[in-house]
Amino acid sequence: MEEVDGFSGTTPTEETNGSGNLMDFLDEPFPDVGTYEDFHTIDWLREKSKDTDRHRKITIKSRESMWEMIKSLLDAWSGWLVMLLIGLLSGTLAGVIDLAVDWMTDLKEGVCLSAFWYSHEQCCWTSNETTFADRDRCPQWQTWAQLMTGYTEGAGVYLLNYLLYVLWALLFSFLAVSLVRVFAPYACGSGIPEIKTILSGFIIRGYLGKWTLMIKTITLVLAVSSGLSLGKEGPMVHVACCCGNLFCSLFSKYSKNEGKRREVLSAAAAAGVSVAFGAPIGGVLFSLEETLWRSFFAALVAAFTLRSINPFGNSRLVLFYVEYHTPWFMPELVPFILLGVFGGLWGTLFIRCNIAWCRRRKTTSLGRYPVLEVMAVTGITALLSFPNPYTRRSTSELISELFNDCGALDSSQLCDYSGANANVSTSRALDDTPDRAAGPGLYSALWLLTLALIFKIVITIFTFGIKIPSGLFIPSMAVGAIAGRILGVCVEQLAYHHHDWIIFKSWCRPGADCVTPGLYAMVGAAACLGGVTRMTVSLVVIMFELTGGLEYIVPLMAAAVTSKWVADAFGKEGIYEAHILLNGYPYLDQDEFTHRTLATDVMRPRRNEAPLAVLTQDSSTLEELEALIKETDYNGFPVVVSRQSERLIGNSVVYFTEEAPQLPASNPQPLKLRRILNLSPFTVTDHTPMETVVDIFRKLGLRQCLVTRSGRLLGIITKKDVLRHMAQMTNQDPESIMFN
Amino acid sequence: MEEVDGFSGTTPTEETNGSGNLMDFLDEPFPDVGTYEDFHTIDWLREKSKDTDRHRKITIKSRESMWEMIKSLLDAWSGWLVMLLIGLLSGTLAGVIDLAVDWMTDLKEGVCLSAFWYSHEQCCWTSNETTFADRDRCPQWQTWAQLMTGYTEGAGVYLLNYLLYVLWALLFSFLAVSLVRVFAPYACGSGIPEIKTILSGFIIRGYLGKWTLMIKTITLVLAVSSGLSLGKEGPMVHVACCCGNLFCSLFSKYSKNEGKRREVLSAAAAAGVSVAFGAPIGGVLFSLEETLWRSFFAALVAAFTLRSINPFGNSRLVLFYVEYHTPWFMPELVPFILLGVFGGLWGTLFIRCNIAWCRRRKTTSLGRYPVLEVMAVTGITALLSFPNPYTRRSTSELISELFNDCGALDSSQLCDYSGANANVSTSRALDDTPDRAAGPGLYSALWLLTLALIFKIVITIFTFGIKIPSGLFIPSMAVGAIAGRILGVCVEQLAYHHHDWIIFKSWCRPGADCVTPGLYAMVGAAACLGGVTRMTVSLVVIMFELTGGLEYIVPLMAAAVTSKWVADAFGKEGIYEAHILLNGYPYLDQDEFTHRTLATDVMRPRRNEAPLAVLTQDSSTLEELEALIKETDYNGFPVVVSRQSERLIGNSVVYFTEEAPQLPASNPQPLKLRRILNLSPFTVTDHTPMETVVDIFRKLGLRQCLVTRSGRLLGIITKKDVLRHMAQMTNQDPESIMFN
Repeated sequence: MEEVDGFSGTTPTEETNGSGNLMDFLDEPFPDVGTYEDFHTIDWLREKSKDTDRHRKITIKSRESMWEMIKSLLDAWSGWLVMLLIGLLSGTLAGVIDLAVDWMTDLKEGVCLSAFWYSHEQCCWTSNETTFADRDRCPQWQTWAQLMTGYTEGAGVYLLNYLLYVLWALLFSFLAVSLVRVFAPYACGSGIPEIKTILSGFIIRGYLGKWTLMIKTITLVLAVSSGLSLGKEGPMVHVACCCGNLFCSLFSKYSKNEGKRREVLSAAAAAGVSVAFGAPIGGVLFSLEETLWRSFFAALVAAFTLRSINPFGNSRLVLFYVEYHTPWFMPELVPFILLGVFGGLWGTLFIRCNIAWCRRRKTTSLGRYPVLEVMAVTGITALLSFPNPYTRRSTSELISELFNDCGALDSSQLCDYSGANANVSTSRALDDTPDRAAGPGLYSALWLLTLALIFKIVITIFTFGIKIPSGLFIPSMAVGAIAGRILGVCVEQLAYHHHDWIIFKSWCRPGADCVTPGLYAMVGAAACLGGVTRMTVSLVVIMFELTGGLEYIVPLMAAAVTSKWVADAFGKEGIYEAHILLNGYPYLDQDEFTHRTLATDVMRPRRNEAPLAVLTQDSSTLEELEALIKETDYNGFPVVVSRQSERLIGNSVVYFTEEAPQLPASNPQPLKLRRILNLSPFTVTDHTPMETVVDIFRKLGLRQCLVTRSGRLLGIITKKDVLRHMAQMTNQDPESIMFN
Repeated sequence: MEEVDGFSGTTPTEETNGSGNLMDFLDEPFPDVGTYEDFHTIDWLREKSKDTDRHRKITIKSRESMWEMIKSLLDAWSGWLVMLLIGLLSGTLAGVIDLAVDWMTDLKEGVCLSAFWYSHEQCCWTSNETTFADRDRCPQWQTWAQLMTGYTEGAGVYLLNYLLYVLWALLFSFLAVSLVRVFAPYACGSGIPEIKTILSGFIIRGYLGKWTLMIKTITLVLAVSSGLSLGKEGPMVHVACCCGNLFCSLFSKYSKNEGKRREVLSAAAAAGVSVAFGAPIGGVLFSLEETLWRSFFAALVAAFTLRSINPFGNSRLVLFYVEYHTPWFMPELVPFILLGVFGGLWGTLFIRCNIAWCRRRKTTSLGRYPVLEVMAVTGITALLSFPNPYTRRSTSELISELFNDCGALDSSQLCDYSGANANVSTSRALDDTPDRAAGPGLYSALWLLTLALIFKIVITIFTFGIKIPSGLFIPSMAVGAIAGRILGVCVEQLAYHHHDWIIFKSWCRPGADCVTPGLYAMVGAAACLGGVTRMTVSLVVIMFELTGGLEYIVPLMAAAVTSKWVADAFGKEGIYEAHILLNGYPYLDQDEFTHRTLATDVMRPRRNEAPLAVLTQDSSTLEELEALIKETDYNGFPVVVSRQSERLIGNSVVYFTEEAPQLPASNPQPLKLRRILNLSPFTVTDHTPMETVVDIFRKLGLRQCLVTRSGRLLGIITKKDVLRHMAQMTNQDPESIMFN
């Protein structure tokens, strides 16, 4: 319903005009009518018509003078300017975050003596004493234990490094959780459920504020560096949206219109995805809105800004650039589909467990000690991840290694194949290393990866939802990449040892490079990400932008489709929708409503309830009105001709007829409030099927809708009523819908 | 309004049931109620709720038996199956069309003696006697004159070849125009304006039929081979949509629901763009609809089918694959933006002239001789294009040559730089040929290209709209590519001869390869295509998929944005919208409606017109009803409580109360028609701003909407009224909106 801020907060001042001493509010609108309170839903139709009015005024004014003309041009171009600014700022922030995370992740292990602000890699790059084989060891880079004791080897050194690693992790996460708690509570989590809800037309004051922006940027670096099983992709979208909101406030066109503001935010979300993955087209698809072209612009500017900062040092835009040299073969679709099934199952498991744990946090005393929880999770994560080399390094590095195909010069354990001595390999081109038997290093790597997989699966469930910025993309991709790589190596060894089997015979001659374990890792990552988020097109497009070729799009699609189907069989919601439901946000998702209910079943008042509070066109007194406002907590009331006929006039705060009768001077003067009356309330008949009502609410972005029969007002349906009814129909607790 | 097919066409049969000999149509719906006539608009809300009903029934039934369960699963999967079939068929058709066009284009010049079904290129490929330098000359391939006279050179041979070329072209186009006229008149044109209108909810029977599919495929080959200035991209979208419609008829889920059918058609359009350009993501963006994921699937299957047919013989999916090796430099943005301006101006010129010419064809006697017109245009095109080598070859080949960078071995005139002898060049890598001075061949090529540019600009205006299948993408791209290449060579020569100028100094050392004329051609093509179609994101994405790298996306975006802005300054519509307007199709575009009118200004009846024809709830007789249907040509009538109160009950053919009173047996029995009554008609109040009404019509896909005040029925607004009002507001002739 409409707000009454203006009505209850403004003292009506008596005005004198020619037509008989009427108090008339027709000339000046109430200052606050049409603004929204915190946790309220906006009315898209009203925002849209407000903007059309504004635009009309500017167009008329622009004909008056040159200056107004320039102002109107500036107004028209402000949209592009905002996009440019968003792209520049979010690209810069993403670059700074990447660099800072790199440095701080390495800080947990040691320090660069020549320049403390260098990360491990940068430190050894600039050193002249490094050979290519030992490129991650150089005298300038010293672990903390080395620095303190002077020794580089030994159990004591290892334990000291272990201890310091855990302590640094605890320090980082403590700083992160404290900063979030003290300065910006909204900075925690991934932010995507809230942003989806905000984009759909919900108000959460401060969620995209300056403080949130600043604190989220800093704590995101701290949280990722602490080594927790979380990623930066979701929070990057939140950060980009904060940038968008920041720049909105520069232009009254956007700051004063919640609908226009959401257009900018949606483009900012695209810019966020664009810099998180280096995938501008995927970013645009992620925020598929009408503002497509501008989103594209913002996403591109952001991507290019990020590239000119060049945080990965390889001139590549994308996070995990890979190039494979071997095609895939039809029979490989079987393991790819298996990975899809795994991804779907992982998605289901993760969503169920994570939601159960988050619900527990909300309802039990666990939720009262967020700092303690963060410290505990960090401690356990650090303790368990240090001994395993695959969990000790940052998750992005792990994924990057898993995605890559084994070249001839790879020193990684994952590439320890027997017969892989440098002499044989370097004489061949890098891209046709044949399949070989696994060496002992690879076998131990597989065991370590299996342990890492179990660890990641369990710890991520408890990590997502703690009170620091935490993304889900990277941990999900890590789970899938590990599983995929393991499966890939298994298939490879099977094909190597049994190339006479019928299934391998057709495509795998001995000595050929037929299986690419890195591709399996990528397919697995896509499947797991798809199982958790239920993204489809944007997921495949992001992956396509990572590999840069159409060649591998069929495996990716097969896995993404399978994963979605498997996960959907267990429950329709992705993790973000599940968190939206858990928090009771008023978000109308795109699912079909298929139940056979009518508007009359949903509208208030119900049969046994008190009748609808209405005002009459010209027979209410100020006293009645004040009483009504005091008794109820509604913000607006339908106005009818008379209580007997209940035929609808309009729907707003109050209304006295436009032409007030001339009364004797002794009588109290009528109050004219036509100005704040909505003369075109939205109505449906009581026989309208609820599927149509849901469709109308979704497509037109309504807040409320009046229900009539034969022109007589029967009741009202609000967005909250619709959401409650939908929850009831799917056997959920209707009281979980908390906001209006 | 609702259809009365069922009502006027069905003889009510008397039924006897327990409750008093009433004629009751509650049990069986009228067979044809809810189908649409030709040239009518569908009601999206009704189609949607029909589908929900169907789905509900299947879900309930599926619990009954195993067989019903399987049927319901099949029903759920039929969408994916349809997509797969569409992808396979449209990919195959695209491949066949490409191969046939190749062969028939060459047939105009000569024939392959070793196998007449080989094109020129294939003929000489299979020949052993060909050296690389002479790869387009081989003894097996003979021109017609050579075959007849035995000579290969001489003025007589040239003239004979010229004559035969023109005759072949005339034969092809005569066949094409005759086939179209006799078998499938809807096969002519590009089809995109009609498909846009059909997708928005319009019925054109036979437009996507089997005959159209067959004839359009054949005549498209003939039309393109005849050498007319037209492309195959738009028609490919039409062909793919015909495939979609064909497969819809296999499943009652799609064939019986016009809304669901349009979901399939929109995915088919994506598949069409995908095969036309080899750009699946661009295809999906082109048909941005809710069925995104399925569109993506269809587009990919189509792209892969096309690739396995491999019509270009290079294993590349895309039409014009290019790889550039030189980056672009900031100062080059100036010529790129100039190309954008050129594209915008060309778009405006083309749209204005083409629409003027098409209007002339519609209104004057010119339209009565379509075959003659086609023959005349073909004759002129063939006569003028044969002497110029750049217009004689197929336009795709021309664009391909213009896009490509000059390698060291290129024998093309465009690569005739002085000092470009093979010795120097082959010793260098292909990708760093430095800028050189232009040779005489290049100068003559530039003159020929200028002539080709003028010819293409003029002839395309007269070609688009003649009565054979004709796409616009390729000719537009050709215009842009020629202009871009010319500009590119100019900039290159300027940079070579004046590398000491300040603007070149910073990025163009002597001996470096700083300007890539091929890139200018691509930017020009994007600009011209953008100016004509006003595509933005999908255009850039298609171009991005052609080059396969983010590197050149900024030049492309700069040109596309400039071109759109320039063209928009002269008029908002693209060529397709212009043709929609010209044909008076009921298409509600996405432009903002900013005028300050109210529903009451648009609704019928107007003040001085006869009152709205209504039925009453329970006091109309069958006689009155028949008279009303005879007098008016409406298909549905609002039903009110009584003529005095005019309070709305419902909106459909006719209504008698649900509970009919028991009448003495002597009285005529009442007719119960509640079943065909729409109990939830859409209403707005008379004070609703038209911008809101337009929004509602657009977003909900309404056909009509009733206007009320205080619950009293005042009038009705149909989609046609809305379109007429919008035309009036933009100073167009409201009578140009012809359909309903």
